[in-house]
Amino acid sequence: MSTALFQNKIILDILEKYKTIWSIDHALALLKWDIETYMPESGIEERSISVSQLDLLKQKLILDPNFTSLIDRADEIKDLNDFERGVVRVLKRSIKIYKNLPPKLLEEFSKVTHEAVIVWRNAKAKNDFLVFQPYLEKIMILSREIAEYLGYKEHPYDALLDLHEEGLTSRDVSSIFSSIVPTARKVLDNVIEKRNYLQRHPLEDVTYDVDIMKNVTKEIATILGYDAKRFRIDISAHPFTIGIGIKDVRITTRYEGKDFKSALFSLIHEYGHALYELQIDEALIGTPLAAGVSLGVHESQSRFWENIIGRSKQFSKAIHPLLSKYLNFLSKFSAEDLYLYFNTVKPSLIRVDADEVTYNLHILIRFEIEKLLLNGEIKTTDVPELWNENMEKYLGIKPKTYSEGVLQDIHWSQGSVGYFPTYTIGNVIAAQIRSYMLKDIPDFYDQIANLRFTNIKQWLRDKIHRWGSTYPPKELLKKAIGEEINPQYFLQYLEEKYLATLPS
Amino acid sequence: MSTALFQNKIILDILEKYKTIWSIDHALALLKWDIETYMPESGIEERSISVSQLDLLKQKLILDPNFTSLIDRADEIKDLNDFERGVVRVLKRSIKIYKNLPPKLLEEFSKVTHEAVIVWRNAKAKNDFLVFQPYLEKIMILSREIAEYLGYKEHPYDALLDLHEEGLTSRDVSSIFSSIVPTARKVLDNVIEKRNYLQRHPLEDVTYDVDIMKNVTKEIATILGYDAKRFRIDISAHPFTIGIGIKDVRITTRYEGKDFKSALFSLIHEYGHALYELQIDEALIGTPLAAGVSLGVHESQSRFWENIIGRSKQFSKAIHPLLSKYLNFLSKFSAEDLYLYFNTVKPSLIRVDADEVTYNLHILIRFEIEKLLLNGEIKTTDVPELWNENMEKYLGIKPKTYSEGVLQDIHWSQGSVGYFPTYTIGNVIAAQIRSYMLKDIPDFYDQIANLRFTNIKQWLRDKIHRWGSTYPPKELLKKAIGEEINPQYFLQYLEEKYLATLPS
Repeated sequence: MSTALFQNKIILDILEKYKTIWSIDHALALLKWDIETYMPESGIEERSISVSQLDLLKQKLILDPNFTSLIDRADEIKDLNDFERGVVRVLKRSIKIYKNLPPKLLEEFSKVTHEAVIVWRNAKAKNDFLVFQPYLEKIMILSREIAEYLGYKEHPYDALLDLHEEGLTSRDVSSIFSSIVPTARKVLDNVIEKRNYLQRHPLEDVTYDVDIMKNVTKEIATILGYDAKRFRIDISAHPFTIGIGIKDVRITTRYEGKDFKSALFSLIHEYGHALYELQIDEALIGTPLAAGVSLGVHESQSRFWENIIGRSKQFSKAIHPLLSKYLNFLSKFSAEDLYLYFNTVKPSLIRVDADEVTYNLHILIRFEIEKLLLNGEIKTTDVPELWNENMEKYLGIKPKTYSEGVLQDIHWSQGSVGYFPTYTIGNVIAAQIRSYMLKDIPDFYDQIANLRFTNIKQWLRDKIHRWGSTYPPKELLKKAIGEEINPQYFLQYLEEKYLATLPS
Repeated sequence: MSTALFQNKIILDILEKYKTIWSIDHALALLKWDIETYMPESGIEERSISVSQLDLLKQKLILDPNFTSLIDRADEIKDLNDFERGVVRVLKRSIKIYKNLPPKLLEEFSKVTHEAVIVWRNAKAKNDFLVFQPYLEKIMILSREIAEYLGYKEHPYDALLDLHEEGLTSRDVSSIFSSIVPTARKVLDNVIEKRNYLQRHPLEDVTYDVDIMKNVTKEIATILGYDAKRFRIDISAHPFTIGIGIKDVRITTRYEGKDFKSALFSLIHEYGHALYELQIDEALIGTPLAAGVSLGVHESQSRFWENIIGRSKQFSKAIHPLLSKYLNFLSKFSAEDLYLYFNTVKPSLIRVDADEVTYNLHILIRFEIEKLLLNGEIKTTDVPELWNENMEKYLGIKPKTYSEGVLQDIHWSQGSVGYFPTYTIGNVIAAQIRSYMLKDIPDFYDQIANLRFTNIKQWLRDKIHRWGSTYPPKELLKKAIGEEINPQYFLQYLEEKYLATLPS
């Protein structure tokens, strides 16, 4: 690492010791990437042993008194620079989590969620909520315990939220939703009434040749621009991005053979995540700062590329010739058709299929239910009814089955409670970035129309990416744009885009 | 692990602690596989840090007094079973190596060899031995030091040899060579005189389509038989086999676009290595016994499949229809042509291109030079002349350049001294296995002619593979066939195959 950034002797000692922990993380990242991409099926048995052993080893090294005492000493130094303070902050968070949570509790959580995933899959297939309900119950009880051990000021939800989005509280999230809901509802009603956007597009039913589509995504990635020496694209069942290192960032995508926008936007989405990791300052390599700072900020990057850029009229038009060259079935469709295909809007039952207008309403439903469950204000047996009521209230539709309602997502069974709002945070920050970028790059949309992304990437690098985890999310945003998280820009974006009478 | 195999309380404690070390090895294997297959180029910077840190961490865990004292205690127990004794033996070897070698020496060795590889590449390109000579000098001095620290009875070479082939001495190797040389020379002279085998085959110049050849190797692998849930084939610059775990064994191959037997036999060779790892008893998973026992025994498995099976008349004939189906240029060539193409024999300058008859002579040349260098009986400046003299003496030809002589291989620059004889050990044991297998499976060659490998694989599993590293190589062989290593079977094989007037 660069001595220009890190100079304090104790910090340098910490970073030297941290290299071992970083190396375990590096290995764990590759072990996990490989599970999803190339590992032969039966390899999972030995892989699971290795991953859990390395997790334990990492925990042991982080809690090693020789290490923690250095952090304690560093924490008392007054004149650390921003990077040095970042190192202390990030490591203190790790230590706190490992220190506060009893190994027994983590073990039980791991055991329950392992079983719960299998039970959930079965319950969803059979449309039987009651099979899953006892596991949801246990997971919520354990999540509450975790929250108690971690500590919080106002609501147990805050403790869990902070794990994924440092410093964000459920009060912040509620406030954001209270702004978003009325406008999202207004926009949705308007679109349905005016029909300026379609609820369904004929291209959704068109099949494609997977090999041809692979070439399309490769070309699109090339157009967005990447350094082949530091990046690769593979295939996996669920698309994801993983930073093996700053100089080795990998994304995956998938090809369902139908409705090609799904593969296209999945690629652009992961590209946004990858760019964040790829543009972190190389001087941070091997330090605790060499990663995106939070799920919400990370999601803002993927959403920025996917929605703000990828679903814009300018981008749709600019890539229309390229797509038409590869996908013969597009010959009957104009650039405007493509734009409408990319931007269908409809109240739908399934979150992952939701559009920009309705997406956050799905998150809200889950956020409200999780908060009530965690606080013991409702029972897990109440969830299906409340789910359906909220769907009706916010989206105007009601699932007919548990499978397309409360059982639709794997996340609860995996024990992921208190992280869903980071998706909305991502959407909100992405729109906020757009507004500030428009000030700095007035011809922003012209550049997109010309598929020129250099200035846009540089803006993101200088304001956000290069810092890695140096600043906590709220401080990073303040530094980048001079303002805290503010949903008004997102609402303005929705209104501008969707209340326009017709796309021109 | 199975409590059936391991019952002693101290051994179980050792194995429990060893799980962490095994997990690091598992991760290191994947990190290294990825470097050769999918890692983006610039990833090497962070990868190098991670690999060296994990190596250090592993060393620390192995030398942890809480661990070594358990091994010491176990070593004094009289009534351990074979598996338990194997665990103690293998771990004592690791501890000895790490304990005896000063970290400073290893660090210097690593530094010198890192530089030497680059210098060697340059020297080879420029055909300039003197550029490389100072590095060879340093590497030999350091190798001698390593030998002194490790200890030996007769010759410093023995200490290095033992690292790769437990229990083998240079006296053993010399004795083997003194048997092999006269017969190999006799066979070579006879083939050259009688011309019953070709020195060059027209198929060596024929180019092939890489995609078609990929299908060929895939079909051949399928014919040999593997479990797709535990095995995969990728592409790398230099073919290799790596056991990420017993249930996750990976080989690589390469396609040069010309002389298709190179890709074919590289696949069969690596298949032999892979089968060894795949057929280790699953009860050994996660223990120090879960790997092939030595380089020589491993090479015997690859050579057995590559040469004994792959280069047999029966196999050549049996796969002729399949190859002809894919490779159109074979329409003009009969099964006999194919056999002759697979088995060209000629004295050649380059070891890796050498045939069954001349291969061991290349090894001998290097073995003799290494021994003299290590003992200080010659200087590194004497090496090129001695190399050429020995080439003349054993193979009857002399390189015109250093690049196709003393500079041909990367190994010395990597610090690999004292391991070359394991190739010859592999050839010798492979032939030995063949003879004993012929007793147990009298229709051995008929089974090959029918591409039936079940009995052959089962023989290898029961006699050799399943044991992993339970027994040291010499003991394993004794247990498998009731005899120690004996080159007579190899000589008999050479004579039978190559002194025949014409292949029928």
